[in-house]
Amino acid sequence: MNEPATSDQRLAKGARSRASIARHAADVASVEGLNGVTIGRLATDLGISKSGIATLFGSKESLQLAAVKAGRDAFVTEIITPSLNEPRGLPRVRALIDRWFAHITEPFFPGGCFRTAALTEFDSKPGPVRDALVADHSAWLAFLAEEIRKAQAQGELPGVDPDMLVFELDAVVSAANTARQIGDDTKVTLARAITDRLLNA
Amino acid sequence: MNEPATSDQRLAKGARSRASIARHAADVASVEGLNGVTIGRLATDLGISKSGIATLFGSKESLQLAAVKAGRDAFVTEIITPSLNEPRGLPRVRALIDRWFAHITEPFFPGGCFRTAALTEFDSKPGPVRDALVADHSAWLAFLAEEIRKAQAQGELPGVDPDMLVFELDAVVSAANTARQIGDDTKVTLARAITDRLLNA
Repeated sequence: MNEPATSDQRLAKGARSRASIARHAADVASVEGLNGVTIGRLATDLGISKSGIATLFGSKESLQLAAVKAGRDAFVTEIITPSLNEPRGLPRVRALIDRWFAHITEPFFPGGCFRTAALTEFDSKPGPVRDALVADHSAWLAFLAEEIRKAQAQGELPGVDPDMLVFELDAVVSAANTARQIGDDTKVTLARAITDRLLNA
Repeated sequence: MNEPATSDQRLAKGARSRASIARHAADVASVEGLNGVTIGRLATDLGISKSGIATLFGSKESLQLAAVKAGRDAFVTEIITPSLNEPRGLPRVRALIDRWFAHITEPFFPGGCFRTAALTEFDSKPGPVRDALVADHSAWLAFLAEEIRKAQAQGELPGVDPDMLVFELDAVVSAANTARQIGDDTKVTLARAITDRLLNA
């Protein structure tokens, strides 16, 4: 009679393994790029057999897609969810940008914001991985634009085009991330000054 | 007595081969990333023996460095040199930005601006290739900042921090390049509106 429980346990264990492998895949992607995410590399890093990883993920592409999802999940947990505790409008928009910058100076992935690197890596390579990256990026920008529209509905950020503001914020924060990874922290200060100016418009 | 001439011809032929291989390496890097630039890949693409390429370049890293240099040379030829015909000050700064945008909508590499992609690809990988990319990027931003300072010496762009303006221009144009590669041309229009606003400050 305990077979369902055992089966549930096995499923739960499989899901935990899957999640921890995907999370490591995102760590690797942040440093090496998504092309560095291979079944062989993860097997070596984690001391798991290649066939074990292949059973859980199937292919390199599935593993890359799982890394993209792990990156998205971490971004939602670390940046979006806590910011929703702030009052809607400019305080929430500022909290989102603050947490985004915190992610650059103390990144939750060893190679920094992994979306920026992955997007430029895959921008000329059509396929499911690029589609997943574009969907993730678009969802984040649409969310941020919506929060800016809520601020505008309260009379904040008057006369600003939300899509243009979001594009500019994303461009500046992403460039600061790249500079920080290269070791140039001065660009984070410059980027902060620019986003402060944009949000005080 | 014609041995020196023959030797010169051989040198000249070697230099031409080297330049055309490096140029193709930059084409490949713009689409696949610099990690896609391998001796084997170039040999297949160009119908040259691997040993021929190895003789000219030595290693994958030298080939990647040659691709970075080919990218830089093309950027100087297509964007910087023609802009120097414009009067110094704002007209020259605007010409540089116009040509930079032209490079995004009609890129001289199949995968678009190859600097942006290569920088994010190598930002977490210390070594000679990253150093070369950072030097190339810094040289371009320093050149642009200097042209902005010349404009300011003429009373144009008052009250603007040239380093901040250059960082913001670079961030916005690079983000437009990534969006364009993904197939989203609307971001080029947004980016143009932003750079126009920044240069009319």
